[in-house]
Amino acid sequence: MRKPDRRRFLTTTAAIAGLTSCSSKDQPPAAQASLGAHMRPYGEPSPYEQQPVRVIRELTASKGTGSSRTPLQDLYGTITPSPLHYERHHAGVPSIDPAQHQLLIHGMVDKPLTFTPAEIHRFPSFSRIYFLECGGNMVGDLAGNPPPTVQASHGLVSGTEWTGVPLATILREAGLQPEAKWIIAEGADHSRMARSIPIEKCLDDTLIAYGQNGEALRPEQGYPLRLLVPGWEGNVSVKWLRRLFVTDKPAMSVKETAYYSELRPDGKAEQFSFVMEARSVITKPSGGQSLQGPGFYEITGLSWTGTGKIAKVEVSTDGGKSWAEAKLQQPVLDKALVRFLYPWQWDGKDAVLQSRCTDETGYTQPTRDQLIATRGPHSGYHYNAIKSWYVRADGSVKHV
Amino acid sequence: MRKPDRRRFLTTTAAIAGLTSCSSKDQPPAAQASLGAHMRPYGEPSPYEQQPVRVIRELTASKGTGSSRTPLQDLYGTITPSPLHYERHHAGVPSIDPAQHQLLIHGMVDKPLTFTPAEIHRFPSFSRIYFLECGGNMVGDLAGNPPPTVQASHGLVSGTEWTGVPLATILREAGLQPEAKWIIAEGADHSRMARSIPIEKCLDDTLIAYGQNGEALRPEQGYPLRLLVPGWEGNVSVKWLRRLFVTDKPAMSVKETAYYSELRPDGKAEQFSFVMEARSVITKPSGGQSLQGPGFYEITGLSWTGTGKIAKVEVSTDGGKSWAEAKLQQPVLDKALVRFLYPWQWDGKDAVLQSRCTDETGYTQPTRDQLIATRGPHSGYHYNAIKSWYVRADGSVKHV
Repeated sequence: MRKPDRRRFLTTTAAIAGLTSCSSKDQPPAAQASLGAHMRPYGEPSPYEQQPVRVIRELTASKGTGSSRTPLQDLYGTITPSPLHYERHHAGVPSIDPAQHQLLIHGMVDKPLTFTPAEIHRFPSFSRIYFLECGGNMVGDLAGNPPPTVQASHGLVSGTEWTGVPLATILREAGLQPEAKWIIAEGADHSRMARSIPIEKCLDDTLIAYGQNGEALRPEQGYPLRLLVPGWEGNVSVKWLRRLFVTDKPAMSVKETAYYSELRPDGKAEQFSFVMEARSVITKPSGGQSLQGPGFYEITGLSWTGTGKIAKVEVSTDGGKSWAEAKLQQPVLDKALVRFLYPWQWDGKDAVLQSRCTDETGYTQPTRDQLIATRGPHSGYHYNAIKSWYVRADGSVKHV
Repeated sequence: MRKPDRRRFLTTTAAIAGLTSCSSKDQPPAAQASLGAHMRPYGEPSPYEQQPVRVIRELTASKGTGSSRTPLQDLYGTITPSPLHYERHHAGVPSIDPAQHQLLIHGMVDKPLTFTPAEIHRFPSFSRIYFLECGGNMVGDLAGNPPPTVQASHGLVSGTEWTGVPLATILREAGLQPEAKWIIAEGADHSRMARSIPIEKCLDDTLIAYGQNGEALRPEQGYPLRLLVPGWEGNVSVKWLRRLFVTDKPAMSVKETAYYSELRPDGKAEQFSFVMEARSVITKPSGGQSLQGPGFYEITGLSWTGTGKIAKVEVSTDGGKSWAEAKLQQPVLDKALVRFLYPWQWDGKDAVLQSRCTDETGYTQPTRDQLIATRGPHSGYHYNAIKSWYVRADGSVKHV
C-alpha cells in the first residue's frame, strides 16, 4: 500500500473541504475489546453526545405556561423528533385519560355528535409531513433586540409526520347546515383555549390528529386529540380538543383579539391572518457557534411556507449584496420544512450570512426594512424577515 | 341547537364507519380544573398510552447479540422514531467516544486517509428518508412456522431520515485507483463485522451517516459513523464504521459466505444478492389484534422496495381470490416505507387478509408457493412473499 503523502493530502483536501487536521496511517483505530452493551426496548442517545434539548421560557410565575423551543442549530434534515417539538401552552400540559375524554361536535349541524378517541381512530386515517409554527415565532427580531441563538429567535417551529382523520370526514358525519361558516375549536386545558377557523379550511386539509412521528401524540402536543391546521399559525391547531362548535361567525375569543392579531400602522388590529408566509433561516453557522479558522463550511438552514411549496432559497455571505441559489434537500414537500445547503469557502474575514426564500406563488421573503415599511413597526405576529448572522474574523457568530 | 337523534346517527355513522358506541349531548367533557404540568426539555409519551417497544431476541447466551424488532402494529405513518428502529447486532452495542474514533480509507487509493467524526461532519451533507431492513427479515415465514405477530415476523424493517456525507465525496478525496472494484467496510464492534460492497453502489447513493431523524445516531445505530446503503440488505450498512478497504475483489467475509447468502435449489449458495425486492405487509389488523364486531375497519400496512418506488399495493380480503387497489400515503418516496390504506366493511365472517405490491419496474410480490418454486424451500434470506392474516368470526386475528 502506498504511504501517505501528507503534504499533498493537505493541499487537496484543504481545497475541497478546508480540513487541516486529517492524518493517515495504515491501521484503523482498535475495535472494541469486548462484547458491547445489551439491547434496549426503547433506545437512548449516546452518553458521549450532548443531548439536544428544548429551551423553556415561562411566561407566568405558575410554571407550565409559556413556550419551549426546538434546538434548530443541533438538528439535521427536516424531521423534528417528537420529544424536541416546540411547545406553546396557555395553562400548562393537561394529563388526559383517553377513556374519559370525548370530542363534541355541535352547533349548526344536522346532528350533534360526541366521539371518544377510540372512535376517532376507527375512521379512515391520513398521514402527512407538515411544519407547525407559532404565530409569535421571531417576534424578538422585529422588536430590534434579537435573541442570541437561532433556537431562541426561530425555535417555535418544528416538522413532523402527523396522523389523524380529516376533519371533513367527521363534519360529514354530523352534517353541516348551509349557514355554517366558522368552527370554534376548544381545548380541554385549564384555559379552554379556543380559536375560530373558517369552514373552508376545515373542509380542506385540517386534521383531527392523534399520531406524530409514528407514535401517539405526546401530552404536550395535545394527547389524545388535537387539531392540525396545515400552514396556519400554530395557535389554531387547538390541542386537547374537546369541542367543535359550528357557527356562522367567529367567536372573537381572547386568543384572536387580544393575541394573535397584528397591530397595523393605522393603529387597528389585523385579525385572522392565519397563513404563515414564506420564511427561512440559517441554522448553521448561527449565533453562539464558532468557526475553526478559514476554509470550507457548509451553510445550512430551513425554509418553509404555509402557502404551499418553497421554490428556491438563496444565500448571501456579504450581507445581502450578492446572492446565490442554495441546494434544496429532496423531496420538497407542501407546507413542510425544507433544508437548504450552500457550500462556502470562508476567507477568515468578517462576513454577514443571510438566506431568503421564494415560494411557488412568487412571493419572496422580505428584508426587515421592507416588512416594517409594509406592516409598520408593531405588527408583532407573523414576522418573517431575512435573518442575518455576523461571522467575525475570530470565528465567533453573533446576531446582527 | 337541535337535540341529537340517536337512532338516525347510529344508522348513518354505522354505515360509514361501523361505529356503534357514539353518543351525543350538548356539553363537552369538563376542561382541566387546574393548571397542567410543567414543560420538559425532552418530551415523553403519555402515561395513559402503552409505550410501543422493540421486542428483543438474544441469539447467544451472552446478551446483546441478536436483534430487536420494530412494533409495526403500533405505529402510524411511515417515520419510525429512532428509539424504535430495529437492531441487529453481532457482538452487542459498542460504546464509542467520537473523540477517540477514526475512519481509515486505504487499499487501492492514491492516498490513504483517516478522518475523525468531526472531520466527516465538515463535508457537504445529504439527508434523505430511506427504509432499512435486515436481509433475514421474515425468514420465519419461509420456514412454515410464522411468528404470531407482525412485529415478530416483519419487524426487522424501519424507516427514518438519514443524514451523512455521500461516500463518493470521501472516495474522491482519497482518489480511487483504476483497479478498484470493491470496498470492504469494517465495523469497530467486537466482532469487527465486515462486508464487501461493489464500487458502483459506493459511488451511487451510499452514505457515511452520522444523523438519524434529526439527532446524532443512537449507539445501536452505529454511533458515531455508519454506512447507509439504500435499498440493500441492512447487514451491508456497516455500523461503528472504522475502515474502508478499497480492493479488486470481495473479502468473502463470514457474513457474506456463512450468512447473508441464499441456498439455491441446486445446493449452491447465492452470494451478493443485496437488493431487498418489493414487499408489503398488513400491519393492522394483524396477528394478536382483535376486531370489535362487524362493521367498518381500515386495513393498513407498509410496502417498500430496494429497487426504487412502489407503484401500487393491492389488498385482498378473501385470501387472494379478488384484489382491489389500496390508497398510498403521499408522497411515495424512493427506497422508503410507503403506507397503504384500504377501507373494509367486515361482515363478521371468517376472512383472510393479504396485501401484494408492485414496484415501478413491474415486479410483483410473489406468493409463498411462487417464491419457493423459484428459489427453493431453503433460500432463507430475502424472503418477500405475500403475508396472510386470518380474521376469525370471533374477531381474533392470527397468522395463517
